[in-house]
Amino acid sequence: MTRFHPTRDTYRPGGTTLASIYYTSAEIYQEELERVFSRSWLCVGRTADLQHHGDYRVVTVGTESVIIVRQDQKQIRAFHNVCRHRGTRLCDGPDGRFRKSIQCPYHGWTYGLDGTLLAAPHMTEVEGFDARDYPLHSVALCEWQGFLFIALAQRSDLGDPPARVLDERLFPYNLSSLTTTRRIEYDVRANWKLIFLNFSECLHCPVIHPDLARLTPYKSGRNDLVEGPVLGGFMTISRQHGSLTKSGEMCGIPLGELPQENRQRVYYYSVFPNMLLSVHPDYVMFHTLWPVGAFQTRIVCEFLFHRDATSSGKFDPSDAVDFWDLTNRQDWQICEASQSGVASRAYTPGPYSPQESLLWAWDQEYLRQIGRTEKA
Amino acid sequence: MTRFHPTRDTYRPGGTTLASIYYTSAEIYQEELERVFSRSWLCVGRTADLQHHGDYRVVTVGTESVIIVRQDQKQIRAFHNVCRHRGTRLCDGPDGRFRKSIQCPYHGWTYGLDGTLLAAPHMTEVEGFDARDYPLHSVALCEWQGFLFIALAQRSDLGDPPARVLDERLFPYNLSSLTTTRRIEYDVRANWKLIFLNFSECLHCPVIHPDLARLTPYKSGRNDLVEGPVLGGFMTISRQHGSLTKSGEMCGIPLGELPQENRQRVYYYSVFPNMLLSVHPDYVMFHTLWPVGAFQTRIVCEFLFHRDATSSGKFDPSDAVDFWDLTNRQDWQICEASQSGVASRAYTPGPYSPQESLLWAWDQEYLRQIGRTEKA
Amino acid sequence: MTRFHPTRDTYRPGGTTLASIYYTSAEIYQEELERVFSRSWLCVGRTADLQHHGDYRVVTVGTESVIIVRQDQKQIRAFHNVCRHRGTRLCDGPDGRFRKSIQCPYHGWTYGLDGTLLAAPHMTEVEGFDARDYPLHSVALCEWQGFLFIALAQRSDLGDPPARVLDERLFPYNLSSLTTTRRIEYDVRANWKLIFLNFSECLHCPVIHPDLARLTPYKSGRNDLVEGPVLGGFMTISRQHGSLTKSGEMCGIPLGELPQENRQRVYYYSVFPNMLLSVHPDYVMFHTLWPVGAFQTRIVCEFLFHRDATSSGKFDPSDAVDFWDLTNRQDWQICEASQSGVASRAYTPGPYSPQESLLWAWDQEYLRQIGRTEKA
Repeated sequence: MTRFHPTRDTYRPGGTTLASIYYTSAEIYQEELERVFSRSWLCVGRTADLQHHGDYRVVTVGTESVIIVRQDQKQIRAFHNVCRHRGTRLCDGPDGRFRKSIQCPYHGWTYGLDGTLLAAPHMTEVEGFDARDYPLHSVALCEWQGFLFIALAQRSDLGDPPARVLDERLFPYNLSSLTTTRRIEYDVRANWKLIFLNFSECLHCPVIHPDLARLTPYKSGRNDLVEGPVLGGFMTISRQHGSLTKSGEMCGIPLGELPQENRQRVYYYSVFPNMLLSVHPDYVMFHTLWPVGAFQTRIVCEFLFHRDATSSGKFDPSDAVDFWDLTNRQDWQICEASQSGVASRAYTPGPYSPQESLLWAWDQEYLRQIGRTEKA
Repeated sequence: MTRFHPTRDTYRPGGTTLASIYYTSAEIYQEELERVFSRSWLCVGRTADLQHHGDYRVVTVGTESVIIVRQDQKQIRAFHNVCRHRGTRLCDGPDGRFRKSIQCPYHGWTYGLDGTLLAAPHMTEVEGFDARDYPLHSVALCEWQGFLFIALAQRSDLGDPPARVLDERLFPYNLSSLTTTRRIEYDVRANWKLIFLNFSECLHCPVIHPDLARLTPYKSGRNDLVEGPVLGGFMTISRQHGSLTKSGEMCGIPLGELPQENRQRVYYYSVFPNMLLSVHPDYVMFHTLWPVGAFQTRIVCEFLFHRDATSSGKFDPSDAVDFWDLTNRQDWQICEASQSGVASRAYTPGPYSPQESLLWAWDQEYLRQIGRTEKA
Repeated sequence: MTRFHPTRDTYRPGGTTLASIYYTSAEIYQEELERVFSRSWLCVGRTADLQHHGDYRVVTVGTESVIIVRQDQKQIRAFHNVCRHRGTRLCDGPDGRFRKSIQCPYHGWTYGLDGTLLAAPHMTEVEGFDARDYPLHSVALCEWQGFLFIALAQRSDLGDPPARVLDERLFPYNLSSLTTTRRIEYDVRANWKLIFLNFSECLHCPVIHPDLARLTPYKSGRNDLVEGPVLGGFMTISRQHGSLTKSGEMCGIPLGELPQENRQRVYYYSVFPNMLLSVHPDYVMFHTLWPVGAFQTRIVCEFLFHRDATSSGKFDPSDAVDFWDLTNRQDWQICEASQSGVASRAYTPGPYSPQESLLWAWDQEYLRQIGRTEKA
């Protein structure tokens, strides 16, 4: 049973890696903040993280700090974390709960959870001052399958979140209703793009991840999204009823009524420019990437399970979490070795193999989004 | 009894904060070092810190290190901390005592405490070498009320230290004869200008400093210097015979025969570009500010008491020192939150209230001194 | 007995130190990496460090990482530490042993110890792929008296290693056959050129190194190489059968049948741009310098003894090593004080004395090599 038609692999043999400058230049990093990270939907986590009125989370995008807050049962809002008075950060991260309003800790300017300025001490003494001129600067926000996305650009300049292309594929997994059970943060001394490249092939698995390669042989997969902002496909789990865990067995319950073929598959999709989605039969792992500089990326990794699994008394997600924590760290380490190498003047773009066709496709999408048609 | 006439408040309603670039740009920071910190009198401490022949202190102004040394009973001198031979730093800070001369630790070039080169091994073998051509590079120095000021500019390009405008106001406090009892250093991740702005209003006191706001209500004051390089006024101490201390009572003895109205006042003056002066009935606190970068400032805070108080057996300055140490840290923390916020691309200059008229005046003086007439 | 004729001292009285910019500018540091460190032979250690098939060492030159590996009994090779596939660092330092081949830890591209690509998984599926097009990028390598030198430039653009000028002078010391016994690394917050200048005069010895000055009085020496890339001469050991050690006595055995006059001499030569050679009657100390930035240098210091000394049961090199470890640290500290001073805007080039003629000669060679004929 196939609900979707894989696009044709457009990989052109002879494709090579990007030039060194893309991984090392401070100027290109600034361009990326401007042209990519300020104009794209960025996954910031799960809607369910903000359950109650006033619950908030603070995320950092380059120099920008953004507050995401639940306004009421229906709405979540996002604002720049900057007081309209003298610019003070309104709150520190990573999360918390506001009572009814957001008050600046400096002079007490007070905003509603919808961003309107409610009180500004002594400003009424200023002739012509109108509080309606000073709402918090809002940030675009949307939801997809229980995931929250923000965008620093104007809403009118933004389309739908690209992840929507996955709707049909991932329908059986009931992504909207899953429960977050673990969150791990990593600081990696590598360019954010190398993290995407690393995610987009399993040619390295036999060398870097012997345990993973045993559970899902590196040639067992097939790509089904091979151009555009969302790329990926699946790999096959060797063992029946198995999953990617230390034990090799499932550690949750199936996420839905999965078609037979999905029960032994892990789906991997990268969502440009900051999300990596890994869908197992019994749990979802997703990464969000936050570039800190040309040489540094902060990565947040979260694990989602079926709520019936998490409410069971004997539930222990560590079989999956520990497996991926080890595997992730192996990946970050080799990405750091890549970063050091591509920064060398001796580095010249090298050839991609057919096993790395998604990397070439990712590079093309990146070049398109940053507005460069050829290599450096 | 008023010995001086307050200038008229020139604050123009509608004034707004400075643009982001003034708090974040490395170029503007360099301009400030050139146009402000190299051409202004900078407070470096108290004359009494250098009591004996040869006592010295080393201070850092941007990339420059300066030695301030007592030459003899009458004179204190200041020199660049750079040997005329091969440029070596002559001594480390923060302070110490020279015996008779200043000797370079590298090759033994030796200078008198007046900066003249006394000995230079093997240089007499060089034809035409004249020791008189190689005195230490001197730095301008002056004194005001027991405070020492240096300036990297030529003496002839400098006027009087601006603090002189305070002479009449502060006459009763006998500033010259006070004794330093405590010195605390702070490293603050905020632009030096934000420290000045923070000092120049008490609108933030109810929110940030509840203890302080109780002792001197934030609306109890009046500004009496409202334009130019020295700005400030007073606030009223609620309690008779009180002061700003943890207990609310004085912890020293009155600094002089204070006029009745001064006995319940704290005078606060900012002296452009590196001094904050806080004059209580029974003690003086002063801060000196040393920019380290656009995002970083080193602050030295010192406490002065009447010498009769300090020589009393039961004298304990911690009632005042602890009060202000806490209050200072509250200020540095909110200044750091301001720094983070104004660095955001979402920050736009915001409106000053009438309670913040001195901040507007300070910004104007700053723009004048840095040679910019409009905002960024 | 003199085997060589000292060149005439070309020092021009009136010579002064270089301008500040040479010690502080990031741009000049980049120029140095391009024009000096990428085009010169750099000493990386001793041939004997790589005794067995596959023994390797990794060195860092600016942004470049280089693997030096013993290919077989006859040959040592050097390669950029960059996989030809996706640029990954092939191995971490500082040293180790390869079995037969060098395998990239990412995707398993495998190279012979001669740099040829032996295996590249899945690349045979790429039409037109030829492994012969992807050998490791090689780095020029040569040997002089048991010392290994690499150069990032093309072999054809390189002459002989300049140290050859020392062959005749140092013939009696059998440098090729000495054994390394100790290696110490230092990180110094000073420009690499200040380390060379510090090495090139002993005018500072009475002030900085009282112990050293007692063993070899600072005026006891004579320079015999006074222009070009290799500069230096000798100093006289006061004590018969003495050496530079904590005890003042030799701690090894004589390195060869030394001519009478050499038995009480230490020869010091600087080899542009990264080697300092100190030849004692009973041991050799050599430093290699690795600039990390305009303000930072990594220094490796190694000690070589006669193999008959090291194989003796009671051999203890610490009498020499501890003496120099202390002396080296004294030098690094004063170099750091020099660095701070020359970075000051008050620094102006100062006069060299006749005792500092080699420094002037070194500066001239440096200006020639970096392609600047006048001072900044």
